[in-house]
Amino acid sequence: MATQSWEDIVSEKQLQDASKIPPAWRLPQNLIEFAQTPNANVMEIPSRSGILSASQLQITELYDATDLLSKIEHRELSAYEVTEAFCKRAAIAQQVTHCLTEIFFEKALERATELDEILSKTGKRVGPLHGLPISLKECFNIEGVPSTIGFTSFIKNGPAKINSSVVEILLDLGAIPYVKTNIPQTMMAADSHNYVFGRTLNPHRTNLTAGGSSGGEGALIAMRGSVLGVGTDIAGSIRIPAICNGTYALKPSADRIPYGRQTSSSRGGLAGIRACAGPLATSVRDLEMFMEAVISADPWELDSSVIFSPWRTVAPKKILRLGFIEEDSHFPLHPPVLRTLRTAVEKLRAAGHEVVTLKIEPELIRDACVMAFRMFAMDPAQTAFKHIAASGEPVIPALATTSLPQKNMPFEYAPLTLEALYDLNQQRNNLKEEFRALFTQGNLDAIVTAGYQSTAVPHDTYGMPAYTAIWNATDYPSCVIPHGKADKKADEAFIRDVNYEPSYDADTIEGAPCSVQLAGRNMQDEELVQVMKVVSSVIKS
Amino acid sequence: MATQSWEDIVSEKQLQDASKIPPAWRLPQNLIEFAQTPNANVMEIPSRSGILSASQLQITELYDATDLLSKIEHRELSAYEVTEAFCKRAAIAQQVTHCLTEIFFEKALERATELDEILSKTGKRVGPLHGLPISLKECFNIEGVPSTIGFTSFIKNGPAKINSSVVEILLDLGAIPYVKTNIPQTMMAADSHNYVFGRTLNPHRTNLTAGGSSGGEGALIAMRGSVLGVGTDIAGSIRIPAICNGTYALKPSADRIPYGRQTSSSRGGLAGIRACAGPLATSVRDLEMFMEAVISADPWELDSSVIFSPWRTVAPKKILRLGFIEEDSHFPLHPPVLRTLRTAVEKLRAAGHEVVTLKIEPELIRDACVMAFRMFAMDPAQTAFKHIAASGEPVIPALATTSLPQKNMPFEYAPLTLEALYDLNQQRNNLKEEFRALFTQGNLDAIVTAGYQSTAVPHDTYGMPAYTAIWNATDYPSCVIPHGKADKKADEAFIRDVNYEPSYDADTIEGAPCSVQLAGRNMQDEELVQVMKVVSSVIKS
Repeated sequence: MATQSWEDIVSEKQLQDASKIPPAWRLPQNLIEFAQTPNANVMEIPSRSGILSASQLQITELYDATDLLSKIEHRELSAYEVTEAFCKRAAIAQQVTHCLTEIFFEKALERATELDEILSKTGKRVGPLHGLPISLKECFNIEGVPSTIGFTSFIKNGPAKINSSVVEILLDLGAIPYVKTNIPQTMMAADSHNYVFGRTLNPHRTNLTAGGSSGGEGALIAMRGSVLGVGTDIAGSIRIPAICNGTYALKPSADRIPYGRQTSSSRGGLAGIRACAGPLATSVRDLEMFMEAVISADPWELDSSVIFSPWRTVAPKKILRLGFIEEDSHFPLHPPVLRTLRTAVEKLRAAGHEVVTLKIEPELIRDACVMAFRMFAMDPAQTAFKHIAASGEPVIPALATTSLPQKNMPFEYAPLTLEALYDLNQQRNNLKEEFRALFTQGNLDAIVTAGYQSTAVPHDTYGMPAYTAIWNATDYPSCVIPHGKADKKADEAFIRDVNYEPSYDADTIEGAPCSVQLAGRNMQDEELVQVMKVVSSVIKS
Repeated sequence: MATQSWEDIVSEKQLQDASKIPPAWRLPQNLIEFAQTPNANVMEIPSRSGILSASQLQITELYDATDLLSKIEHRELSAYEVTEAFCKRAAIAQQVTHCLTEIFFEKALERATELDEILSKTGKRVGPLHGLPISLKECFNIEGVPSTIGFTSFIKNGPAKINSSVVEILLDLGAIPYVKTNIPQTMMAADSHNYVFGRTLNPHRTNLTAGGSSGGEGALIAMRGSVLGVGTDIAGSIRIPAICNGTYALKPSADRIPYGRQTSSSRGGLAGIRACAGPLATSVRDLEMFMEAVISADPWELDSSVIFSPWRTVAPKKILRLGFIEEDSHFPLHPPVLRTLRTAVEKLRAAGHEVVTLKIEPELIRDACVMAFRMFAMDPAQTAFKHIAASGEPVIPALATTSLPQKNMPFEYAPLTLEALYDLNQQRNNLKEEFRALFTQGNLDAIVTAGYQSTAVPHDTYGMPAYTAIWNATDYPSCVIPHGKADKKADEAFIRDVNYEPSYDADTIEGAPCSVQLAGRNMQDEELVQVMKVVSSVIKS
């Protein structure tokens, strides 16, 4: 028997996958063609498609998860209606952005029916997420659903035999998984691109990246093909898609949301910087609702990687004291980001909050990023690259942009030795101590920064995520709040004579979402969410 | 100028140190001679010495820390009276067991005077530990006090310039440090023996070890030369001294009690198994009081190694469900330990508690210990041994007994490679998952085991601490409760035809304290302390 080429293996899977979108949910040719025009904004495609009924458009556009859960609980909407609406909209989003990996609408709709019956018969919900469709990043295992994480070499593994811990808990809470979402090959890049599922496009402008590694989530939620999704983050992978697509997101402290039993691209046993799972959503309160629901399900009973830390109810503060880091000069903020970040700070000050500029070493953020990426590369077996090589598929171009040395980071990887790992761990300990001192001495509630020097950028140019990776290196929870859009007229006054990297071209990114990032203290996710509520409400006004 | 030999450097320091015990507190020659007879029990020396007044004997013998704090608060005793009594008694303990390293009685008495004045003037205590003398393991830095950790090569460093984080907090809470306590060279052995401070003897029988690495604490507290002390533990170093000397002790979950700014024998940056700080005491409630006081001082504000986890008030359970692991066959329990452990279990069952025997793999505890000691040896620079070599002093004999391969552990160290470290980390993750499953499936409140296969053993024979190291490898809090003593008549029926290691000789250990060990779940120190209270009260009866 001849060995199949990787292209043939992929084609076969793609053919099967394509059949999972029912014919009635397929976009008409004119919309497909529109979506393929350069720089298309496909955000309106779902409402223009005629595929969703008026009520389905309402379900998917007007509410956040908290609203939907309430409507299901009070039988204003059935779980079936809600799930069907999001299945349809996700199918549409997929056709214009390639944001999905695995689709299992039938399974989801069956579960929705069951949940409706339970509520109808018993008058009780199975849990606080009863009937809510939830999207999940490709790496989460769902029994019976393939988990290739975009490696051609993983296609032969077939359907997953177990649920990831967080999936198990979401099911117990009454949620309805219905799709998995796209990621970069190896999950170590900011472009959700691989040879099994293709490349996820930014729905605001298809010439731009949707971010990564939870990029499929970002694009899907932006298009309201999902109202709540679960991503993972080790250098920005939950926040970058939120930044690129204009959604809310929270990277919790590590080990609070269960991370166990995923399909992984990397080798187990790295203890330096821990990845974490967390939510992307369309409102701050949904992020909080997700955190509280999952943590209140005692996830440490199911997964030893979760730290015992019951969710605490924290009183919101009326007047915040925020630290402000405007910029690391190695990553100058692009005009729209500088403008919207400054506007946010002005609004916060005008609302009576204290915003104090923090003094940090000029190299601090850059060096933390170098340290983090050196740690990520310490696996002497280079496990992720073995999974690529196993099928013969090429390496995606984006991976070159998150490798060392970089233009702004002319540093080599560390030698693959224990000595080097000890030194990196020590460097990380020192970094944590610096930020502890900043928080304690400044008596800060949170730190405000940009999440990235630019908005979403053209495909394969994102590069090193220094402004997000710093909060993984310190293990501080951090979140993204959408705030404005690139607007070349307004941005013009913010152009400076600095070395923008990637290059700044106003026309290329016009209309791309902007945002601010907040970081709180380790294990004080509860406090950060309260700060986020205040900040979000101030900067929205 | 000729270089001084290490012996000369040590002699000079020992001469200075000896002068820190006032002549009036020196034992008469007959008691010194008694203490030097073979197998001496020196527990009664303080009361026989005539150095402590009746009231000082009362202060040091009748109360635990909670009592003393209450008496100081209500001005039944002054901080000065209490501190002086413990200084005297510590000085006596030092003369017969060599349990101390640094002595700073004057400084302590000055502080006691100040604290008395504050209480007298303001009517308020400076904190919940107002006026309580607390002993500290040698590795904790106290400003102005040397911190050699028993390395001759560290003598030249002079007095510490900073306080360790926990010292800073204890001072803020009103405690009075007055002595530091002895440890093994490198702190990686169970015999508190080094060439700067000598060897700590077990006060119950001087032919036996006082344990380590917080061995000075164990001997000092057993002799009531301290009522509350702080040790550190990475494989049993808080619990082994409690086991050997018959005190209470708690090894908390890592990162709850501040560990920062100590003088360390090892290299920073090992992330595999984390050492922790914790209390040794004369009562369970004092362990709880210490934990609550320190954690309620927000130690994470001072030290980034502390995890944010406010102390929780937990209701005690009336009926416990305890898992029971009687033995790992590689470390057969010696007769007194088997007898007292079984008695404890019988008492617990008779009191209505459920004690269920756990089924574990026969190699589980041994393999976890091998894994832990492989991790401890991963520093390619062998930092601790460099500190020994720097002065030319010899390596203490006990270190040979905690090296691999061992008689019961015929395994080599892991290669000093990243590959090996990844594998060890993964092995530890798997171990944590096994114990999570045991706890969750068994619905357990705690696990009961022996803390060591024997009582205290002759010097330099303790070997590998498998029964304690397992709870460091899993990062489960664990504690020691004194329970009975070796009694050759009672123990005879428990002699089995097994390979006792170290060898069992009833006469050598007659009268040595016995104990039981409990382990709770990670970050549930609060729950474990409640279980400990119940178990302690049942087995005492």
